[in-house]
Formats: sequence, structure tokens, C-alpha cells
Amino acid sequence: MLVISWLGRHGGGAESPRSRKRGAPLPIERVSIEALRTDPIKVLAQAAYLQLGHFEALSRAASSAPDLDAKQALSAAAGLVLAKHRALVAELKRRGADPTAAMAPFRDSVDAFFEAAGGADWYETLASVYLTSGLLDDFFSRLAGGVPDGGPKFAEVIAGDSGTETLVRLLAAGIREDARVGSRLAVWGRRLVGDTLLLARTALPPTEKNAEHRIEPVLTELMAEHTRRMDRLGLTA
Amino acid sequence: MLVISWLGRHGGGAESPRSRKRGAPLPIERVSIEALRTDPIKVLAQAAYLQLGHFEALSRAASSAPDLDAKQALSAAAGLVLAKHRALVAELKRRGADPTAAMAPFRDSVDAFFEAAGGADWYETLASVYLTSGLLDDFFSRLAGGVPDGGPKFAEVIAGDSGTETLVRLLAAGIREDARVGSRLAVWGRRLVGDTLLLARTALPPTEKNAEHRIEPVLTELMAEHTRRMDRLGLTA
Repeated sequence: MLVISWLGRHGGGAESPRSRKRGAPLPIERVSIEALRTDPIKVLAQAAYLQLGHFEALSRAASSAPDLDAKQALSAAAGLVLAKHRALVAELKRRGADPTAAMAPFRDSVDAFFEAAGGADWYETLASVYLTSGLLDDFFSRLAGGVPDGGPKFAEVIAGDSGTETLVRLLAAGIREDARVGSRLAVWGRRLVGDTLLLARTALPPTEKNAEHRIEPVLTELMAEHTRRMDRLGLTA
Repeated sequence: MLVISWLGRHGGGAESPRSRKRGAPLPIERVSIEALRTDPIKVLAQAAYLQLGHFEALSRAASSAPDLDAKQALSAAAGLVLAKHRALVAELKRRGADPTAAMAPFRDSVDAFFEAAGGADWYETLASVYLTSGLLDDFFSRLAGGVPDGGPKFAEVIAGDSGTETLVRLLAAGIREDARVGSRLAVWGRRLVGDTLLLARTALPPTEKNAEHRIEPVLTELMAEHTRRMDRLGLTA
């Protein structure tokens, strides 16, 4: 079982908010992540830039696909993800923001994330898109759902199809063909999840001092979804 | 001035059809390229696979763009080209063809073309997409225009926007900034046109024995368009 915490501070340690109140567990506040006071422009811009990164990863995977069927399917997936990016960019414009300027602050951290999550080969790239876009779309669709004036619509855009079935199909075929691919991807999937959660965390407003324990239930759900994604490939999360 | 012939046999030489009839010029047959007896599935499949190649080149250029504005604009262009690919694939399916199988025969030649036309750096890649997709879209939209049951529609799809204005804008900015970029791209553009015409030629049906002189006027028009594209960048074709 994967034990992970948002800040890597759980499981004891003087800095944990829980350990400070030993014996007095915090009441579970059912405040959803949508209620966090996030800046709409920032959330939409970071989500838009992330879709651009997933688009690039899928395009690269399409370019290096071993056969024409995979190339086509991955190009179609890239198209879906690009459409999500474009929809978010259009919304930034509608709100009077310059999309390029709005996305710029996220460039370094997101680029660094995608470089680390790029994968050493084609299957790792596919697994990376499948797992990281899955988790980040889950997370950002919740955050965007709380944006005033259209939140549910943006949540739907972000949670929209990213060609997941294509990725599962290609990954499952690779794992079926060679068991070593599966064991490699299991390790890779576990490595990815930490980086992905850290990136998601950067979207939380610093003013939300209690954010960590408030979003703990969300984290649990995100991890459950991640585990289900790994399960679909027959891999242990 | 660029003197080029379809097969590289003009300008004298015993094998030129014209030199065989010295003093008796062939009558200009005003048979348009649309009238060539091309196989609809082959034309649509080759055009579809070419769009996929342009899509990949644009995605790569977006990935390695030096700034976020260029990255965004090139991603949008990639999306336009992908939409053309998808429309052609949909038409192949509508005609009962398996798109992957239909495109497969063109894979080697088209992949080799894109490898040669990839360019040594970002500006060469941009120039390559601008010039080769320009010429090939011109050519294939004419060919596809002659396909029974929907020809004009396919011609319109293929001739549709590939983000040309974005490419011109980025190329012009690079040339303005550094004159060496311009002189390098002038040479590169001249190199590309030969390979591009040879690739286009592979789409002509072998049964059309007189194809060469029949399509000579088309070739002239294609070259005139190529020259206009070079002109827009201030480069000599």
C-alpha cells in the first residue's frame, strides 16, 4: 500500500498539525476543495498550461508510435487535450486576461514537472500521461468547479476525455506482451504520483492556512482514483 | 530564378518528350489535374497521412518554441492541421476503407520526406511546414477536387487553414531580427521544393502516361504559389 501525504510530513514528526494536538484529533470539516478561495485566473491558467503539456507529451508519443494505428489513436487523443487547452484559453480571454501572461508564472514549475515525468521510453510516456493527466484533471476540475461564473462548466472541460481508453488499450497491450513492461510501469507509476501531488499542491492558495487538513479527504479520493487507474492496468499502486 | 521540372528531365536531354519533337511543340492540352484518373482512397489516404506529418512537425515546433506566445500559436496551428487529418480519416471510413491500412503504403515515402524536411533548427522546421504544407496542400486539394462524390469538399478541407499566418509571423520576426536567418532559409526553401515536388509526383497514377505534360501547367502554378510564399518572407525562391 502506498502511504503518501500532501506535504510528505505525515506519519509523525513535530511539524505535523495532528501531532501538535496529540490525542485530540481534528474534527473532519466537510469543506470541499471547491470552496477554497482560489484566484479564478490562476486556476484556469495553470489548468490550461497543464493541458498544453499533456498535449505535447501525447504528440511526442504519437510521433514515436511503433505503428500507424497507435500513431493515429494518440494523435486523436492529443487533439482532445488540445481542445481542452483551447477552451480554457478562450475562457481566460473572455475574462479579460492575456492567456500567455496568465500562464507564464506556471511555466517553470510545470515544465520541470513534465521533464521529470517524461519517461524513459514510449510506454513510460503513455503511462505518465494516463496517470498524471488523470490525477491532475481530477484535481483541477474540482478546483475550477469552485470558480464563480461558470465553475461547473470549466470542471466539465477539464474532466473531459483525454483519450484515456486509447492509453489504457496501448498500455495493456504492451504489458500483456512483455511482463517486464508491467513491472517497470508499476515502479514508474509510484514514482509519478508524488511529483504529481506536489505540483497539484502549488495550485492551493497560500492564504488557506488550514488547507492541508481541509483537503485531506480530497487527497484520499485522488489517491483512490489513482489506484483505480493502476488497477485497470493490473498494476499495484 | 528557379528552373525545375517535375522529373528533372527538362532543359534539354535526349529523354525529354519535347526534344523528341523538336520544332513541333506539343499542343497545350487544358486538361486539369482534377481529371487525372486517381484512386480516391489513395489520394485521400496520402493526403491524410501528410496532414498527420505536418501535425507532428507543428507539435514539435510548439514543444521547442522559445516563448509561450509562439508555443500557443503553434499548438493552435497543429490543432488546425490535425482537424484536416481527422476529416480525411473520417471520409476514408465513410467510404468503407480502413484508414490505417489505406495510409500504410505511403508511410515509408512520407516519413522519409518529413525526416529530410525536418530542418536543423526551429526556424527551418517552421519554414518547412510553411513551404511544404503550402505546396502539398495546393497539389492535393487539386487532386482531391477530382474525386467523385464530394471532391470539392475534400479540396476545401485540404486547402483549409494550416496556421499559415502564425508561421509567416514567426518566420518574419526571426528574419527581421537576424539577417543570417533569412539567407539560411532562402537556401533551405530552395532545397525543400525539389523534394516536395517529387513527393507530390508519387500521387500521380502510373496509368496516366501523358501525365507529365498534362500537369505541366499545374506545376507552373504550384511554383508560382511557392514563389509567392517565399516573397512573403522577403526571400528569393
